[in-house]
Amino acid sequence: MGNDRIDLRSDTVTAPGEAMRAAMAAAPVGDDQYGEDPSVNRLQQVVAERLGKEAALFVASGTMANQIALKLLTRPGDEVIVGQEVHVAWHETGAAPANAGVQFAAIGRGGLFTAADLDAAFKPAGHVVYPPTTLVVVENTHNRGGGIVFPHAEAEAVCARAAALGMASYLDGARLFNAACATGLAPERLAAPFDLVSIALSKGLGCPIGSVIAGPAETIARAIRIRRMLGGAWRQAGIVAAAGLHALDHNIDRLAEDHANARLIAGALAGAKGVALDLATVQSNIVVFDLAPGAPDAATLVRRAAERGVLLVPFGPRRVRACTHLDVSREACAAAAGILCELLAA
Amino acid sequence: MGNDRIDLRSDTVTAPGEAMRAAMAAAPVGDDQYGEDPSVNRLQQVVAERLGKEAALFVASGTMANQIALKLLTRPGDEVIVGQEVHVAWHETGAAPANAGVQFAAIGRGGLFTAADLDAAFKPAGHVVYPPTTLVVVENTHNRGGGIVFPHAEAEAVCARAAALGMASYLDGARLFNAACATGLAPERLAAPFDLVSIALSKGLGCPIGSVIAGPAETIARAIRIRRMLGGAWRQAGIVAAAGLHALDHNIDRLAEDHANARLIAGALAGAKGVALDLATVQSNIVVFDLAPGAPDAATLVRRAAERGVLLVPFGPRRVRACTHLDVSREACAAAAGILCELLAA
Amino acid sequence: MGNDRIDLRSDTVTAPGEAMRAAMAAAPVGDDQYGEDPSVNRLQQVVAERLGKEAALFVASGTMANQIALKLLTRPGDEVIVGQEVHVAWHETGAAPANAGVQFAAIGRGGLFTAADLDAAFKPAGHVVYPPTTLVVVENTHNRGGGIVFPHAEAEAVCARAAALGMASYLDGARLFNAACATGLAPERLAAPFDLVSIALSKGLGCPIGSVIAGPAETIARAIRIRRMLGGAWRQAGIVAAAGLHALDHNIDRLAEDHANARLIAGALAGAKGVALDLATVQSNIVVFDLAPGAPDAATLVRRAAERGVLLVPFGPRRVRACTHLDVSREACAAAAGILCELLAA
Amino acid sequence: MGNDRIDLRSDTVTAPGEAMRAAMAAAPVGDDQYGEDPSVNRLQQVVAERLGKEAALFVASGTMANQIALKLLTRPGDEVIVGQEVHVAWHETGAAPANAGVQFAAIGRGGLFTAADLDAAFKPAGHVVYPPTTLVVVENTHNRGGGIVFPHAEAEAVCARAAALGMASYLDGARLFNAACATGLAPERLAAPFDLVSIALSKGLGCPIGSVIAGPAETIARAIRIRRMLGGAWRQAGIVAAAGLHALDHNIDRLAEDHANARLIAGALAGAKGVALDLATVQSNIVVFDLAPGAPDAATLVRRAAERGVLLVPFGPRRVRACTHLDVSREACAAAAGILCELLAA
Repeated sequence: MGNDRIDLRSDTVTAPGEAMRAAMAAAPVGDDQYGEDPSVNRLQQVVAERLGKEAALFVASGTMANQIALKLLTRPGDEVIVGQEVHVAWHETGAAPANAGVQFAAIGRGGLFTAADLDAAFKPAGHVVYPPTTLVVVENTHNRGGGIVFPHAEAEAVCARAAALGMASYLDGARLFNAACATGLAPERLAAPFDLVSIALSKGLGCPIGSVIAGPAETIARAIRIRRMLGGAWRQAGIVAAAGLHALDHNIDRLAEDHANARLIAGALAGAKGVALDLATVQSNIVVFDLAPGAPDAATLVRRAAERGVLLVPFGPRRVRACTHLDVSREACAAAAGILCELLAA
Repeated sequence: MGNDRIDLRSDTVTAPGEAMRAAMAAAPVGDDQYGEDPSVNRLQQVVAERLGKEAALFVASGTMANQIALKLLTRPGDEVIVGQEVHVAWHETGAAPANAGVQFAAIGRGGLFTAADLDAAFKPAGHVVYPPTTLVVVENTHNRGGGIVFPHAEAEAVCARAAALGMASYLDGARLFNAACATGLAPERLAAPFDLVSIALSKGLGCPIGSVIAGPAETIARAIRIRRMLGGAWRQAGIVAAAGLHALDHNIDRLAEDHANARLIAGALAGAKGVALDLATVQSNIVVFDLAPGAPDAATLVRRAAERGVLLVPFGPRRVRACTHLDVSREACAAAAGILCELLAA
Repeated sequence: MGNDRIDLRSDTVTAPGEAMRAAMAAAPVGDDQYGEDPSVNRLQQVVAERLGKEAALFVASGTMANQIALKLLTRPGDEVIVGQEVHVAWHETGAAPANAGVQFAAIGRGGLFTAADLDAAFKPAGHVVYPPTTLVVVENTHNRGGGIVFPHAEAEAVCARAAALGMASYLDGARLFNAACATGLAPERLAAPFDLVSIALSKGLGCPIGSVIAGPAETIARAIRIRRMLGGAWRQAGIVAAAGLHALDHNIDRLAEDHANARLIAGALAGAKGVALDLATVQSNIVVFDLAPGAPDAATLVRRAAERGVLLVPFGPRRVRACTHLDVSREACAAAAGILCELLAA
Repeated sequence: MGNDRIDLRSDTVTAPGEAMRAAMAAAPVGDDQYGEDPSVNRLQQVVAERLGKEAALFVASGTMANQIALKLLTRPGDEVIVGQEVHVAWHETGAAPANAGVQFAAIGRGGLFTAADLDAAFKPAGHVVYPPTTLVVVENTHNRGGGIVFPHAEAEAVCARAAALGMASYLDGARLFNAACATGLAPERLAAPFDLVSIALSKGLGCPIGSVIAGPAETIARAIRIRRMLGGAWRQAGIVAAAGLHALDHNIDRLAEDHANARLIAGALAGAKGVALDLATVQSNIVVFDLAPGAPDAATLVRRAAERGVLLVPFGPRRVRACTHLDVSREACAAAAGILCELLAA
């Protein structure tokens, strides 16, 4: 928004630039409820191909993608295995039990878990007392874990074990392109083990609106109805789909800059007074750090930083997140790091 | 879409023109999840004022507006009084019981009902056997009733009776501006009796995406969370909100043309062979007509018309809807009427 | 309760007699949650055999049986076809949308409908706008329709058509033994067309508590978990199951008396001043009659009758139900009829 | 069931003895759906008094009581704070999200937590991203924590803090009389801090069926409808309520024997090879112990013990529960302990 703010609250704050706006203005459109929006259809086809899935559906948000996945892959009363503090359990205002009637079992640590963890937490269908575990969700990269990457070999093991147990698997890949950038593995490869996968266009890719969910054609066909049930049946969505197509062409390769900028900020903070920050977790565009007892608490630091033009979000009483993206330059990130270190030194 | 099609399937099929596209391309935006999108904020303010309500919220579809209203104004197990064949019970793929856990009691005839009908159907809270009636929904204009207008005096009586019975009231005003055009009453006046009201931007107003729900500030504040629960928490939605602002300035007055065009089509059809059509129901931009036993059935007529470039939708085995809008001219409507009469005469 | 009341409110009011109490007191029991209650197991086996189904489950009420059936045979957002004013939509306090997320489409008249009605109301899965119709429920006998019997040939046609359309079928047979008595057809035959069927023990059969739901073994196995989800996982339920076993041995044949008593009352009322009552609907143990404009309204008649010791229930502003059962003798019914005629003549 | 089994699986397995059966056989009853069952009414009154609440409702199971409490005190999308591995999240087959649409946040350790833990986990209403925390549930004694007692001073602090935060509080007191026995505090005093409380009659009290939920009269009045929604509207429930009245008179004081028997078993096991068991957690009638790496796993021990006539339940791959109750004597418990030690020594 403001010219002089350095907005590190989220990679969702990016505003479309001139080229993306031009793409939207020129987008061919139609009524997507009749399947006639060429820009939407093209976006869905491109994303399906990029993710190595048969079909894809354009939806209004990452939360909508996640909720659709839950409704597709579970029944009310099921248990869903997730990592700790995942978006679908923490940041969707209780939507999962309200929409899908499911409960979560959080396993592992910091957003990561192993196939052995899955095995230990699994509860079979047919037991009359325990809720049956029917789905595992992996968030990659994992937001509250500091943008950490879910190790691909473990994802493969988790999904293999899930399939053997009769469970479905879903990849909340809101920041999957960040994971691809961090690992050098293609999104298609990261998505391959999972039954369903979603990506966000409105986070690191810089689009104003939207996510895409991809999977088998039959499943995506059913997703259309569930999207409508949630109120996501939009019309000439090609206007915003065009931004997605633009972003897929122009905003993927540059994610490496965001990652370098996050490391820059993290490196500075790791040396700052009163900060606890494990640099090994800084693998993508997110920096989550803790404030030690002597340091200001999260609310205080966030307020003071805002007064200096640096915007962050609190992630707990003494935990703070900074997030890099295409609307903050390397210089801005360096300046922000300097301001934060100053505030912490005071 | 096509150059030569006359698309009367729905007023949702309109594509944005140059001026609306330019408005979107130039829209100032921000992250609406931080309340920082100026175009969204402006749209919400303007719609609240037009509807005479304290506050408003921009959402992805009319269905989303309706589902939010149900979740705001009811609890699971409640009964909701509606007219026959309302959108919220017929066209939202079972969303209401799935999202809000409510059941419908349809009263009256053809989408209209009276305060006396309401009284007869009301079931009080506190009864242990019957579900309590806690909400009445009016759809104005009423789509499946042929775009008929809900008489304003009756709406006032219904809402007064509902309030006296401790019920909430909601106006599904997806086509409220059509009702205003048809009656000469301001939208604000039509909305006044109701606790909550929604309008669609993507129907007669010609926008690509979106509806707005308006009501008391406290209720709309709660609506923000419910929107997120349904996956409707979008980001730089100002891009599409700008289309709404443009439409409110430019596409209201011209609705009278759509109404005249609907009457033109209806007048022709009323005289056609095998058509049953009560011209008294043709009050806005919708024409619903029945095909008598000797005539082709709905599927056949729709198919044959499509072969001639005229697109309609079947509303039952022997019922068809035609809908006028800003992308079909008077000439196109006259041509469509001629083609339909030809097909019916054959 | 009282010695001198003639309680025609419902066949649920019966109190267990000495023999049934003795059966309960002597019942062998175990923890039904470990499948170890011999009386429950025996009841379930006997009912399954009587209904010609593979397996059965003992549950706390007819409502619980109905809700389990809905949760077994539908998914949230589905549409369920029912007759008018069925128990599952009218008398279960909105449980169906709250528990199963389904909506009802009521067809036919007076609780009866035809396969052709079903066909006309059916909405296929795969349509994105309409909720898919996945289940048809028949209530036989039909309470609010006056205890009317659903014609067996039509039930067969309805279920055949449902199966052809990919729908499931469920028989709410809370009063199925009354239907069997009225038609001379075995319960097994009446249940045969349906995927699932339930009967009540606590209505005409005179037990204190319980219903039984029967169907394929695999479905009933899943029903055990759903019963628990609703809070119906009881322990030494053999105490009350023993009453059911006793009733199945002793209280079936005598239902003909209740039917004769209902006809006695109906015959008297049909000739009474201000009563509208079609004797053709009086086919079992229920009499539903309407009060003409000159007559007292339902609340007044019910109150005045209660003052004379005759208990009835209002079924609407001018509609009343009387219900015969094993705790009202032929003499009591004759007396009640006389009192009602007196009150109406006044 | 069997004569020679020592059944330590659960205190739910108790069968009613002669006196309790006689009480049931003689119970005055009526139709509880008309509020006319004197035994039910008496039970509800007695329990309300014992728990120091205005009113109470008799329901079919502890799970039904818990689910009713959730539906009374929350809305879909809310978050509910619980201790680790509580019954309502672990043993009710996913009912809570399916029925009430809520999700759980488990805090503390071993079923216990503090007001400070509550404070740290609390999420206020009004935040758009996080689900609002609206209810705290305490399970006392706590089953999976080994029958441990929730310290009363902490319960008071938790409820005070909850009230200050605008949250409701619910005591799952399925084994509240065990907690009272263990602490010497009256049930009324243990229940006092909580808005709602439930007790089970079919666990340590030895009844065949039922739980009771108690609280303010207005809340319990609403509970009647929710009980019906879940299928719990039973009729002449006085038959089983009479067992509850009998148990409240005869089976409370003897709980101290069960506790002594549990300590006897625990003392023996604590010294057994390969057993990890903290005697400090053995505060009531439950013994939960872990099997060390060298020992047989839970499934093996449970199977071998069953072959010797001692029945236990596995609580995890290497965790086992034994539960004492009125149908296992001190001699039987000593014998069981001996058999288990033998099996572990082998």
